Amino acid sequence: MVIQAEATTPSAILDRASLLLDAFDGPGRLTLAQIVRRTGLPRSSAHRMLERLVQLRWLRREGRDYELGIRLMELGSLAVHQDRLHRAAMPFLHELHRVTGFVVHLAVLDGSDVVYLDRIGGDLSVPTRVGGRRPAAYTAVGKAILAYADDRRLAEAMTAGQAGTRTRYSVTTRAQLDAALEKVRAHGVAVEREESLSGFGCLAAPIGDPGQAAVAAVSVCGPVDRMVFDHRLAGAVRTTALNIWRHVDDGRVRVHPTLQHARPLGLGPMARPHPEQRVSHSA
Amino acid sequence: MVIQAEATTPSAILDRASLLLDAFDGPGRLTLAQIVRRTGLPRSSAHRMLERLVQLRWLRREGRDYELGIRLMELGSLAVHQDRLHRAAMPFLHELHRVTGFVVHLAVLDGSDVVYLDRIGGDLSVPTRVGGRRPAAYTAVGKAILAYADDRRLAEAMTAGQAGTRTRYSVTTRAQLDAALEKVRAHGVAVEREESLSGFGCLAAPIGDPGQAAVAAVSVCGPVDRMVFDHRLAGAVRTTALNIWRHVDDGRVRVHPTLQHARPLGLGPMARPHPEQRVSHSA
Repeated sequence: MVIQAEATTPSAILDRASLLLDAFDGPGRLTLAQIVRRTGLPRSSAHRMLERLVQLRWLRREGRDYELGIRLMELGSLAVHQDRLHRAAMPFLHELHRVTGFVVHLAVLDGSDVVYLDRIGGDLSVPTRVGGRRPAAYTAVGKAILAYADDRRLAEAMTAGQAGTRTRYSVTTRAQLDAALEKVRAHGVAVEREESLSGFGCLAAPIGDPGQAAVAAVSVCGPVDRMVFDHRLAGAVRTTALNIWRHVDDGRVRVHPTLQHARPLGLGPMARPHPEQRVSHSA
Repeated sequence: MVIQAEATTPSAILDRASLLLDAFDGPGRLTLAQIVRRTGLPRSSAHRMLERLVQLRWLRREGRDYELGIRLMELGSLAVHQDRLHRAAMPFLHELHRVTGFVVHLAVLDGSDVVYLDRIGGDLSVPTRVGGRRPAAYTAVGKAILAYADDRRLAEAMTAGQAGTRTRYSVTTRAQLDAALEKVRAHGVAVEREESLSGFGCLAAPIGDPGQAAVAAVSVCGPVDRMVFDHRLAGAVRTTALNIWRHVDDGRVRVHPTLQHARPLGLGPMARPHPEQRVSHSA
C-alpha cells in the first residue's frame, strides 16, 4: 500500500482551497457530501482542508454544515476599504444618495461583469449588494465603463452578457450595445431602463481621467416609474463622478490592466461639469 | 544538492496563505520584500504563492505592489449576506436608522472582540466599518452580548480589552465591567459614552432568545453630545433587537459555540417591548 502525497504543490493546494470556497457561492451552507459533489475533490482531502479552513476562521462549521466564516468578512471588508478609489468616493456617494434619495452604487469592471464596491441606501427593493456582480452590458455602470473600453473587451462583454440573467429590454446584439455606448460618449452618462432588472432603472457616469479609460462608474438606481432621467439627475451623477476622480489620494488610482490601452475617455461632457450642480462635500 | 519540497502538507500551505493575507491587515499595499519581512516566509515560496493568489484574484498586483483582490470582496460579501441573522436584520436596521438618524450597527462577538456585520448611515465621522473589530468590553454592542456570556468569556474580554485601543472612559477592571453588565441585565440595553472612541456614544440591545445567550447586538451610535440616552431611544433599539430575533428565518440562528452554555438572557426588559415604539417593517 502506497500512502500518496495529496495535492503536490502549493499552487495546487491554493487552487483546491479556492475551489472549496467557490462552492459556497450560491447555497450558503453545505455538508461535506455536498462540497465533495460540487468540487469533485477526494472526500478525505476535502475534509482535512475544510477543517483547517474552519480553524483559520475562513469557514465556520455548525454541526455538519459548513458556512463562509468571519475572517472572510474581515478580509473582504479590508479589500473594499483599502481601495483608494472607494475611500475617495465614500463622502460623495453618501451626498449623492442624500440629494437624490436613490440607491447609489460604485462599481468596477471585472472580466465581463461589473462588481459593486459600495451601495448606499435603504431601499431594499433594489436587489444589489456590495461584492455582487451583474453582466456589464446590461447595467448603467457597465455601459458607462464599456463606452471607453477597447474592442476585445466589448466582444467579451457581449458573449458573457448573453449567458447571464437578462430582461426583455437587455441589449442582445453588438449593434445595440455599440449604439448605447455611442450615446454614453455623447452625453457623458449611461441610462438603463429595466435592462438589468424588471421594474428598475439606473443612471451612471464613468469615473476616470479624460485621456484614459474609465476605471469605475457611479450610478443612482430606483424603481423605474419613480425616476426622471433629466439633466438635473444626469448632472448630479456626472458631478459626483468628477469629484470622486479629483479626490482620489494621489491621482493614480489603479487602472484595471485590461483597460489601460482602451479608448480614451471623451473630452466632451466629462470635462464640462455643471458648477451649480456640484455635489458639495460638507458631510 | 537536495531539492527540498516546500511547505509539506495542505494544512501548512493554507496556514501560509492565511499568513500572507493577514499581512495586508493594516498597510493595504505591500511589496514582496515587505511581505517577506512581515510573514517570515522564504522569499521564493512567498513569491510563488502570491502570484498564484493573484491568478485566483484573491490578490491583485499593480507593478511591484500587491493588494487584496476582488475575489475576497466577493467572498466577504457572500459571507455577510448568507448570514441568516444579517438577512433578518437588514430591514430593521434601516428602519432604526431612518427613525433615529444615528449610525446603526449589527455586531457579533468573535473571541474577545466584536465584529460589525453591518453598518447603516452616512455619518462618516463615526469610524466603524463592516468587518471591522473593537474590543468587546469597550463597546455598547460588546457589553450587550457579554452581559449574557459565561465567566470564562468575561475574563478573556478583560484581558484582550486592556491590550486594545481605549479611551480614558474605557472599563479597566473586572469589577467595572461586572457593574456595567449588571446594568445591562437590569435595563435590557447597554450604554457606552466615549469608552470606545472619544467624542462618540452608543446604545445597544442584545439579540437572542430569552433563555439562551445573546448571539449578536444592535446599536445606534453618534457624536455623544447629540445623543439623548432616554427611554425612547432605548425602546427603539430594544424593539429592533426583538424584531430581528423574531424574523430570523427559522428561529435557529447559529449561536457562537462558545456562548452556548452561557448565562441565559434575562427575562426582564427583553421580554417587555414597548408596543407603541415597535419599529414597523414597512419599507
